[in-house]
This record gives sequence, structure tokens and C-alpha cells, in this order.
Amino acid sequence: MTVLDDSRARPEITTGPISGSRKAHLDGPDGLRVPVRRIGLSTGEHLDVYDTSGPYTDESATVDVRAGLPALRAPWIAARAAVGGAVTQLACARAGIVTPEMRFVAIREGCDVELVRSEVARGRAVIPTNRRHPESEPMIIGKRFLVKVNANIGNSAVTSSIEEEVDKMVWATRWGADTVMDLSTGRDIHETREWILRNSPVPVGTVPIYQALEKVGGDPVKLSWESYRDTVVEQCEQGVDYMTVHAGVLLRHVPLTAKRVTGIVSRGGSIMAAWCLAHHRESFLYTHFEELCDILRGYDVTFSLGDGLRPGSIADANDDAQLAELRTLGELTHVARARDVQVMIEGPGHVPMHKIAENVRLEEEWCGEAPFYTLGPLATDIAPAYDHITSAIGASVIAQHGTAMLCYVTPKEHLGLPDRDDVKVGVIAYRIAAHSADLAKGHPHAQVRDDALSAARFEFRWEDQFHLSLDPDTARAYHDQTLPAAPAKTAHFCSMCGPKFCSMRITADVRAYAEEHGLTSVEAIEAGMAERSAQFAAGGARVYLPLEPR
Amino acid sequence: MTVLDDSRARPEITTGPISGSRKAHLDGPDGLRVPVRRIGLSTGEHLDVYDTSGPYTDESATVDVRAGLPALRAPWIAARAAVGGAVTQLACARAGIVTPEMRFVAIREGCDVELVRSEVARGRAVIPTNRRHPESEPMIIGKRFLVKVNANIGNSAVTSSIEEEVDKMVWATRWGADTVMDLSTGRDIHETREWILRNSPVPVGTVPIYQALEKVGGDPVKLSWESYRDTVVEQCEQGVDYMTVHAGVLLRHVPLTAKRVTGIVSRGGSIMAAWCLAHHRESFLYTHFEELCDILRGYDVTFSLGDGLRPGSIADANDDAQLAELRTLGELTHVARARDVQVMIEGPGHVPMHKIAENVRLEEEWCGEAPFYTLGPLATDIAPAYDHITSAIGASVIAQHGTAMLCYVTPKEHLGLPDRDDVKVGVIAYRIAAHSADLAKGHPHAQVRDDALSAARFEFRWEDQFHLSLDPDTARAYHDQTLPAAPAKTAHFCSMCGPKFCSMRITADVRAYAEEHGLTSVEAIEAGMAERSAQFAAGGARVYLPLEPR
Repeated sequence: MTVLDDSRARPEITTGPISGSRKAHLDGPDGLRVPVRRIGLSTGEHLDVYDTSGPYTDESATVDVRAGLPALRAPWIAARAAVGGAVTQLACARAGIVTPEMRFVAIREGCDVELVRSEVARGRAVIPTNRRHPESEPMIIGKRFLVKVNANIGNSAVTSSIEEEVDKMVWATRWGADTVMDLSTGRDIHETREWILRNSPVPVGTVPIYQALEKVGGDPVKLSWESYRDTVVEQCEQGVDYMTVHAGVLLRHVPLTAKRVTGIVSRGGSIMAAWCLAHHRESFLYTHFEELCDILRGYDVTFSLGDGLRPGSIADANDDAQLAELRTLGELTHVARARDVQVMIEGPGHVPMHKIAENVRLEEEWCGEAPFYTLGPLATDIAPAYDHITSAIGASVIAQHGTAMLCYVTPKEHLGLPDRDDVKVGVIAYRIAAHSADLAKGHPHAQVRDDALSAARFEFRWEDQFHLSLDPDTARAYHDQTLPAAPAKTAHFCSMCGPKFCSMRITADVRAYAEEHGLTSVEAIEAGMAERSAQFAAGGARVYLPLEPR
Repeated sequence: MTVLDDSRARPEITTGPISGSRKAHLDGPDGLRVPVRRIGLSTGEHLDVYDTSGPYTDESATVDVRAGLPALRAPWIAARAAVGGAVTQLACARAGIVTPEMRFVAIREGCDVELVRSEVARGRAVIPTNRRHPESEPMIIGKRFLVKVNANIGNSAVTSSIEEEVDKMVWATRWGADTVMDLSTGRDIHETREWILRNSPVPVGTVPIYQALEKVGGDPVKLSWESYRDTVVEQCEQGVDYMTVHAGVLLRHVPLTAKRVTGIVSRGGSIMAAWCLAHHRESFLYTHFEELCDILRGYDVTFSLGDGLRPGSIADANDDAQLAELRTLGELTHVARARDVQVMIEGPGHVPMHKIAENVRLEEEWCGEAPFYTLGPLATDIAPAYDHITSAIGASVIAQHGTAMLCYVTPKEHLGLPDRDDVKVGVIAYRIAAHSADLAKGHPHAQVRDDALSAARFEFRWEDQFHLSLDPDTARAYHDQTLPAAPAKTAHFCSMCGPKFCSMRITADVRAYAEEHGLTSVEAIEAGMAERSAQFAAGGARVYLPLEPR
């Protein structure tokens, strides 16, 4: 493990609870403590929501990025090691063993632990947990569970610093990122990753080919299995929880991209395509895939089989290149599973709405229902600067159909590198997409938050409405722009309609009126209406006459 | 007509072309000139896109808001009047008459004029065009045509001025609003509307009950058919093109809302519910509906039958109150059509994704396929401050299923009044939703713009990419934040990956390599691959062996 460089200025990390919430824990068996974000309401009630933010939002926790987070899972990992050998969550699940990680996840999801175990056992869910990343709070990715969101962070050759990257992770998880991918290129890749891993409460994913390419001076032709393998081992040792491997970009697939509108848009995909063509050999990721499985199994690192040939435009969606690669990923899924290695499958990209369902159907059919992990997809290409929206549309639809994790897209996609605000907006847009899908899939707990917020809205409990929202700070700020005075937060109207036209006030009047006249329930009111209806019928049931002569 | 008050400061109106575009016109029969926005490309080509912005983006036009826009349709209207009596587009279409408005629309949509006439004739499309609003450029709303977007503008008791409202209309149509609704309440309703109508190139909608309520001092109980009728006539005379009428809020429907989480959230709906309950009489909008039809027919004003009982939360979606009202709207649709009055049906609101399709199915079944015009819907309640996104998700899905026009939602929804930036963001989000649905519905011209933008992106034609996007200014600004230097705009890489990792550069290299080696087409490359494939088969077809020994 790299010793973190103390000579640098200590980075500024965002800490403290989200407005209106505090950290709480749900107690489980064997001393398990599962974090939740507890939203207090003015009614005296509270609502617990899923919490990805780690100790950073816990007022009672001491944050020291140089020391890293506590190694929550260390005893569980040690106990497994004592039993002997490397054991993955998949191997345990198949053997009928319920791990502490599974128990933790079941409490977190509010479901039965047997659902967790059985879904992991059949490969329809994964728990990405490198045994060298004991700081992580276990989470599950699978279609039967809450839809998850990944945020990409990472420097590039052009901008950024290590300190900024660590806080990007903290910032992204604060707003709801379930995992982060460190896509750093350029200098200090190893050290950046070390800082992120030691401080990350969520699983961290990488694309090892990026670092491997750095090691050979940036020339894809110079890549080799050996240098790639060494990079993977290095990253496994550090604690990376899942790795994108573009092993489905085969030599024979490359020509299928020649007539595309946007060719190959995946970095990893284009690197491997370049290697295959230059050497006229099959991809070393494919030919050495079994060895790769053995390395990942040793750490319980999860494969995220990359879609190096994903479409980069509406025109290229669901084309031969994309689907040929997906078939290959399915083949590799079964190879990995046979070795007890957990697998996710990455998906597009850019897909018009009517072609989205087919992506999920084919992925499930060909890849044995391995969790699908898609980048959007963008439902149209025509709105750069708004691709968090174009892709939140596609993401909602694909998650409704069964995608288990959504990789976020920020407003800067295609244009530049996201800053702090972009990361937040991207995560919020994707929490919206994920939650919309949870509702559409009928997740048993999803609608509780909608109902709580809507009830607060209807009752003019402004503070509760802010606190229940995905972004309390912005909701409050927008409200205050029009009606900044404190009394406005208790006003029984809002700035949209003003006091006279407030429909909610009128509805309240309607209810009061109904109560005053003894019409206290739907049944009573309907009975009264039935009487009137009889009068109406007796009067000839003429539709355009008033129901009563008055 | 009100004389526009000259004593006020002349409002600042946004004029000039959108970056990279200029106003052009397509010539049609009989001297028709249909506006388009012509996007010039660096390749020497251009792309014409649908243009809602009127003369304000025309450099050759003189804009004088005090004089208003030229009365484009005046001779057509005069010619119809000469034939005798009030004639609606629906009556003409049914009689087999092709109006100049229909010809204009057909050119604008790039379709056959017979499709326009026949869709209007069967009531599946409307052309909202009050004969007293001759300044408007005809447009069509129907599921067989491009999906349209409405932007709401209007002051309130709390903020705003008339000048701001006119520019909001100009601003909203600049970014792509196909119609605007003037939802003004408070003072100066009549004068505000006059300014907007005389300067609006798009149809203007209103909700007359708001002004009627002002006239009776804001007390719903004091409303009467007579005062409402007079308000409708006043607005018809001014030139309002379509009117929201909440005639489906019946006395017997009100109790169905009593146990809702969010009661009645429509202003118009709650006003009528209050009136019905207070008087214990059926809604005067319902009992006088035929008279209302006769008034609207006289001006060819289109009904937008309002969903006063739309759900205000996920919990209330598709409930008995909503569907009972929808059935009534269906009944009224047929009454209006029998009188040659054009009809749209307004829809929700807040609906989880899995309940969206049913809304369209029932609307089409019960309302004779009248164009559906929905407010979003929001796919979740939990993200105030981001409801342009929560609702763009629902809007895309409902438009894919057949909704013809989408009423935008801004980030300030539920929180405050939208400012200029909010209006723009709301319109752009909804242009994204509409276009995503056009793609998903297979609209024959929709994908041209996606393909043009994606090709520009792939070829690093940065300026073309900006100009083809829905918001060139923001796309350029985001790019320049990371790479402001002018050479970056011609660079064959971008800030996301830097020069070494640029997948598009690598793809170009792949293509160059293929060409160098004589592999100039998919067929040639595949033939080469087939040869290798034969070698592979001869070698035993072992999957994990390199295809070639080198």
C-alpha cells in the first residue's frame, strides 16, 4: 500500500449531515449496524432513507482522510480467510452460506436475506466487495433490488488534482452515488486510487486498461497480456471492487464498426480494437480470460464486462457490432461464473426509446440475467449540455425494464470535464431515474418517500417538503427566491398562485365544507350524491339541465 | 382591442438569430412562405429545422412590439368570411376543403397536405387558430405529427410585469415553445394578454376561469355562467387560440377526491369544485357547454378540456376521480365535435411510469382520439427543484405512447415562479422529451438532426456540433470552460479524454489502418476475416488460443 503523501495540503472534504437529516443506524444480528439517513419531520415522525454517504455525514464521526475510514468488514474477511482460501460472495451463496455482507445488504434493502443469497447464487445480483477494501459498506446490484447509480470520477491529462478527486467521491456519494468509478488517466493514477479507496464507503470500480496503457507510453500497440495482468493484480491488491474489462471486443467484431456514424466511442473498446488490428491477433483479454478470472476470484473482485462497441449515436443503436459483442459477453459470463467470479454486464450508450427494451431482453437472454449496468442511455443526440436529461430519460426506461445499475451522465458529457456542480446534478438526475424505475417496478418501499413528500406539500409543511426532497438545499433556495420571508414557509399558499388562487387552500375549504355539512367520508358524500342522482333521473336525466332547479 | 399603453417603457425584446442559424423560408403554393431555422454547417451543407420563433430571429424583420406582428393570415381569414359565416378548420376539413392553414402546416411538418386534412377531419389533430389572431403562424397538434411543447407564462399576484411577460413569450418561442399559455392572474390581465397576442407568432392559450374569478373579487362562490361567458367572449375577441375549460369537474366527482393524498391540485378544478359544492348544483361549465361550443365555433377557438381532477401525486395517479373526469371529457368531446369545434384533452400531472400507457389508452378510447395534451407527467414526487427532469421522463414516455403536446414544467415547479433561465431550461427539457418521442415513434424526419450532430461530433466539427444542438450557447460555454482556446475547437480530441485516450481518434486510426491494408469496406474486411476464421477452424477452433500463432 502506498504511504499517502503527507506533504500535500490536507484536502478539504465535505462533511456534515444533509439539511434536515441525521445519520442513524439500524441494528441487525451479530452487532451489524446498517447506516440510514433519518429525515426528521415537523409532525414528530421520521423517514429513514437509503444512505450511501458513509461517515462523512455523521456528526459523531471523526474524518481523517490520511488515516482512511474504519475497516468495517475486516473481521468478516478475516473469518473467511481462516476458513481457508479465497471465497467469493458467489461461492458462499452457492454453498448456501449467508455472509455478513448479505445480512448487511438485506437490512439495507429492507428485504429477506434469503432473497439476497439466492439472487447472488444465481448470478442475478452481485455484491462487489474486494477483500482488500474492508472500508466499504456492502451493497447489492441486481434487478430485484433498488436500482443503483454509479458516478464516474477521475482526473485526466488536462485538469484536476488528487485532492479534488477524493472530495468528488465524497461529494458524489453524499448526493446518492452507490458506487464510484475512478477513471483517472495521466500521472499519479496509483496514488489517486489509493486515496479514494481508503476513504470510500462505496465500492470503487476501475478500467485497468487505462493504467496499463499509461505504462506502455500511451501506445495501444505496445500493450501485452503480461503488463495488463500486472496492472490488474496491482489494482486488486489496492482494493478495487469491480473492473471494467472489454474482453468482448474481438478481432472479427471490429469491421462491423466500419460503417457506423460514430465508430467506436468507448476508450477501452477503441484501444483493444487498435491492438487487435495492429497485431492481427485475438484480444489478449479474451484469450487470457480464464487467467483473469482466477486473479479476480482471489480478491472477490467483480467483473464489469465492458461494452467497448456500444453505440455512440442514435444511428448506431442495437447494430451488429453492439450485439455481436453482447453475445461474446454472454459467453464470458458463463466462463466467469463457472469460476465463482461475480459478473455485471455493461450496456449503452445512445439508444432511442423504442429500442431500449430489446437491450435488456437480449442481455438477460445471452448473459444469464447478469446485472445490467448501463451508461444512460441517451434517448437523443441533439442536446449536448443537457445530456444528464437526455440520458435520465433513457436510464429511467431501461431501469424499468430491469437494468440494475445506471452510470450517470453529467451536463458536461461530450463537451468537457464535470465540475463539482455537474457531479451533483448528474447524481441527482440519476437518483430521479433510479427512483422512477423503482416506483414503476413496484418496489415495496419506494413510494413511501413520494407519499411523505406529497403529504407535506399538500399540508404546506414547507420544511418537511425540502427535507424529504433529493436536494433540500436547492429546493429551499428556489422557494426563497420568490418568497424569502420566514412566514412564507408556514404560509398556506405559495408563490405560484398567490393566496387567492391556491388550489390546495381551496381543496382544504372543500373538505371543510363537506365536513361541516356532515359529509365526512367518501361513502357519506356518495350517498348524498346518489340521492341527488335519483332526483336527476326522475327529472328526465337531461344532461344539459342543471341537476337542481336552484 | 385595447390601445397599447405607450407611456410605459418600451420593453426589451430578445431578437436576433440563434447562434449558427438564420431564418429561411420554404416556398409553397399560392405564395405561402413557411419559416424554418437554417443551420449552416462547415461542410457547406445546411439543415433546416422546425422554427417556432417568429420574426424575432429574422435579421431582416423589424420588430415593433407596439405595432405587433404582421397579420399573416388576414387575407385567408377574410376570404373565408366572404364565403359566409364562421367556418372552423374542423368544418373545412370535414367538407373536404383544404385551407391555407393546412397547406402551411403540411410544409412545416414535411408531410402530405391530405394527411393534415384527414387528421383534422377525424378530430385526431387540431390547428388552433382564432380568426382574431391573424398574426399566428399555423401549426398542428396531433399524434401523427411532430410532438409539440407548450410553455406557460403569466404574472401572478406576487411578481412580474407586463413587459417581462411579453419577452417571456418571445424567449420561450425562441427556444422552441410551439404554443404559450397566458396564465396571468391579478391586475392587467386584459392588457397583458393583448400585448402577448399581438406579438405572438404561436397560438396562445388561456384559462378563462382565472379572469372570471378576478371579476367577482376572487370568491369562487360568486362565479356565474353569465360572467364566465362574458369573459370567454372577451378573450375570443382578443384572439385567444385555445381555452382550458374544466367542464369535467362534476358535482358527483368531487367526493372522489376526499381521500386523496393531494386532493385537487388544479386551480381551475378546485375553483369549480368549490362552486359546485357551495351551490349544490352541477358545474355551469357542464350545463352550458353547448352554448360555450357555439361561442368558440364563431372564432374557431379550440377547446382544451381541462383535467381539473388530475392527480397531484404518485399516490393519486389513475384514480377514480381522474378517470371519472376523463370519461366526462370524452362525452363533451363528442358534443363539441358535433358543433365543428376543435378539441384537445388535457392530461396529468403526476404518474409513475408503469401507469402512463393506460392514460393514453383510455383517453384515446373515451375521447375519440382527440389530441392529448399532458402536463409532464412527473414520474416521481421526490425531486422538487428538478421537476423539469422528473417530468421530462414522464413526458417522453407519454408522448411515445401518443400524447400530441406536452406542457412544460420548469425547475421552479411547486416552489416558485420561473425566471428567464427557468423558462429556457424548461423549454429545452421538453424539446428533448418531444424529440425523444418523435424518434421512438419513427417520425420520418426526426433522426436527421441526431445523425447530423453525431457525424459532426465524430469528425470533431465542434462548431457544427454546437450549432446543431438545442442550445448552442450553453454547449459552447461548457466546452470553453475546459478548453477555451480557439485551436481546441478544431482539435481532434476533446477535454474528456485528452489527446492520448481519444477513442474517436483511435477509431479514425483503425479505419485508416484498414484502408492502408486494402480493407476498404465491410465486405472486404469480412472476407479477410472469413479466411482467418477458416484457419481458426482448421486449428481446432479452440476458443482460448490466439487466432494466430504470432
